[in-house]
Amino acid sequence: MKSIILAGGSGSRLWPLSRDMFPKQLLKFDEDESLLQKTFKRLTAFSEPSEIVTITNVLHYPNIKLQLNSIDKSNIVIGEPMGKNTAPAIAAALEYFLQNKVSDDIVLIVPSDHLINDIDKFNKTVEAGIALAQQGYIVTFGIKPAYPETGYGYIKTSEPLLGGYKVEKFVEKPDIDTAKKYFESGDYYWNGGIFMGKISVFMEEFKKYANSIYSNLSKLDFSSSTQINYGVYECMESISIDYAVMEKSDKVALVKLQSDWNDLGSWQSIYNVKDKDENGNVITGKVVTDNVKNSLIYSQKEIVAVSGLENVIIVETEDAIMACKMDESQGVKKLYEKLKANASDTTKLHKTVFRPWGYYTCMNSGEGYLTKTICVLPHQKLSVQSHNHRSEHWVVLEGTALVLLDGEKYTVNTGDSIDIPLKSKHSLQNPYDTELKIIEVQKGDYISEDDIIRYEDCYGRV
Amino acid sequence: MKSIILAGGSGSRLWPLSRDMFPKQLLKFDEDESLLQKTFKRLTAFSEPSEIVTITNVLHYPNIKLQLNSIDKSNIVIGEPMGKNTAPAIAAALEYFLQNKVSDDIVLIVPSDHLINDIDKFNKTVEAGIALAQQGYIVTFGIKPAYPETGYGYIKTSEPLLGGYKVEKFVEKPDIDTAKKYFESGDYYWNGGIFMGKISVFMEEFKKYANSIYSNLSKLDFSSSTQINYGVYECMESISIDYAVMEKSDKVALVKLQSDWNDLGSWQSIYNVKDKDENGNVITGKVVTDNVKNSLIYSQKEIVAVSGLENVIIVETEDAIMACKMDESQGVKKLYEKLKANASDTTKLHKTVFRPWGYYTCMNSGEGYLTKTICVLPHQKLSVQSHNHRSEHWVVLEGTALVLLDGEKYTVNTGDSIDIPLKSKHSLQNPYDTELKIIEVQKGDYISEDDIIRYEDCYGRV
Repeated sequence: MKSIILAGGSGSRLWPLSRDMFPKQLLKFDEDESLLQKTFKRLTAFSEPSEIVTITNVLHYPNIKLQLNSIDKSNIVIGEPMGKNTAPAIAAALEYFLQNKVSDDIVLIVPSDHLINDIDKFNKTVEAGIALAQQGYIVTFGIKPAYPETGYGYIKTSEPLLGGYKVEKFVEKPDIDTAKKYFESGDYYWNGGIFMGKISVFMEEFKKYANSIYSNLSKLDFSSSTQINYGVYECMESISIDYAVMEKSDKVALVKLQSDWNDLGSWQSIYNVKDKDENGNVITGKVVTDNVKNSLIYSQKEIVAVSGLENVIIVETEDAIMACKMDESQGVKKLYEKLKANASDTTKLHKTVFRPWGYYTCMNSGEGYLTKTICVLPHQKLSVQSHNHRSEHWVVLEGTALVLLDGEKYTVNTGDSIDIPLKSKHSLQNPYDTELKIIEVQKGDYISEDDIIRYEDCYGRV
Repeated sequence: MKSIILAGGSGSRLWPLSRDMFPKQLLKFDEDESLLQKTFKRLTAFSEPSEIVTITNVLHYPNIKLQLNSIDKSNIVIGEPMGKNTAPAIAAALEYFLQNKVSDDIVLIVPSDHLINDIDKFNKTVEAGIALAQQGYIVTFGIKPAYPETGYGYIKTSEPLLGGYKVEKFVEKPDIDTAKKYFESGDYYWNGGIFMGKISVFMEEFKKYANSIYSNLSKLDFSSSTQINYGVYECMESISIDYAVMEKSDKVALVKLQSDWNDLGSWQSIYNVKDKDENGNVITGKVVTDNVKNSLIYSQKEIVAVSGLENVIIVETEDAIMACKMDESQGVKKLYEKLKANASDTTKLHKTVFRPWGYYTCMNSGEGYLTKTICVLPHQKLSVQSHNHRSEHWVVLEGTALVLLDGEKYTVNTGDSIDIPLKSKHSLQNPYDTELKIIEVQKGDYISEDDIIRYEDCYGRV
């Protein structure tokens, strides 16, 4: 079986933990693995790592690749030049399989950012789906509603079918009265965005119902790169798989998802899935409370001290603090939009930015200078580069640095330092087995990430 | 007239803005002047700067001196070796005047951390007090209660006396029912801790009612230093002026304080004295709100985004965030005590620490290293010092540094750097007219402020 992970997604609803450049699927929520990594591992029960295709905006490509490589380097990540909703993304990933001469296998398509803990029951659901998919059905996984939610689309089922149900129709997000009716009827399921079916069946339905997408697929060329061509993708309609195919196709069946499921679409849903202490609180990090109840308090770095509050969410990150009412945690999106309108960097990036070679954290900046801590992972190196507007000054805090500077090699030990003059060709490298940590002081008339000329890069960024 | 400013005070109730090492009187609340500086300036209407004696714990001496010197360098600050409540502090300050051959002048004694805006009306109250003081009364300034507060002591007046009243008795903090009776009676005033009287009268009453303090005063020696002798001060009873003298003396009169007054004893009282926006909010710093009402949101450094909350206080500082309910802001003290019990540095120090020569901010620390930004004010210098356990590495960000290193002088310009080896004798100096900013990277097996040997120091810290 083949698998497709849809890893588009933006960073607004779980701000400030998620960011434009670090969306929900990359978050680890203080566990060892991100939602993306958990999703990938879940699929390895059915697909080889090299048969799992993750599709994401090219902006997220480095971080997605970094996380998946830590599990298995044979993973495939396709980069979208722009966001185009789920239908073009799925179609492009299917086309990738076809161009790689995959026989008419079944493909399982899942979002990258949902939480499913009960793997056994998930696997059983997939097996139930396989039976239907082999009969030529497109199978959607329906989630039995736990309450009358107005924020999800619903799927109405009719008669039973091979361990599942025939699908009568897809319906939009209902108002609360309609949601209550759906909830009571028992025939309605939440649409969790998980689908499976034969590649050939999906393609037939695309051809029939979404030809503006289908007709462009052959122009995509995955023979030398997994990056989607901008011009081709731009021509495709931006539309969800639900609208484009599911609502129109008469081949759709539903199996009931037997496992737990949570889309973690708000801070409140994070609170809901976490273990609570005796006061009903979910506490993470350096937090002190007094008389606090039924709240989520998350500290990433500094001390958060809370007294006398109930039903609140407080999230502290290195450069932004968010506080809101528990049952209005959708309001976070509005805060995010206000900040974005003010061009606040806190909507885009974290202070700590991950790169293929490691990560850096901006510590401090002022008139004409910026300081960073930089961590280079073992056996990694930064590109050979130069800057037209700044000199750099490096002090090694941990490990040993190999520095290439204008053709010479220097070894810089812990506690030592080196100056990188303006316009000099340089590369920071860590050929050793332990992490290299340095402090970088940038000085210049223009300090920006875009003041960089790359000459050589082992991660293909030249 | 002479003046005494009582500047003991701890940092618990306005944490995290106040700290043990940076108590309320030093805070500026986003105005140009701290409460201490405002208090000092208020007194200059009656006393020469050299006749205003500020008494504080020796730990706060450098910061108090720094703030007062910015107004007038002839100020006098007496350092207490330990906190001993108000009676010994006042007695010691009176003794200072006597040892400096002050004739039997009137002395005005005020707390350093109360807010009074209407200077004219304050001055009129002082003038009313002078008339009574000249008649041999100890005058206390009574604050007309605005509501039945249970957190203050009260003073009961009897018949009118020379523009004021005779005092019948001092009473302790009442319960709410008693507070309501006091409030309705009209004879009761809040005790604001402001007193005036002739030095000789105060001394007579100390002798009569607090002889354990009085009898030790002659052992104090202010001829060469304003630091109080540890052994002498240790023998004095730790007791408030109210208990020691005011409640016992039959020479106490009261004048009604005509100006505004606020002791800023809680975050709620800060909220109360500040201008509100159209939603009843007091907003300071980088704050974004949506549907927030009647709240105080204070950001010192990072973005604070708040949605859907009412009647809350949220205070962000560089290393601690505090959130509490508006009308339970006394609960902050409990958070502070919990943190102190955990030996959290956030109760003691700010990340930015003020020194006579400027200030430094700890940016980042890890295994065996610490980074700081250091600002040396124009024409200031750090002591000549050495460290047994760390080397230092300085990069100049702004201005020019004059560095003394093992007997040699080096000029280090913006963008340049210098290494300070382990155990080398060094001094960082700024003989120029603009601020000097550097980044310091400390490396060593033991990184602590107490790893310092001082050889020369222009601020008397050797």
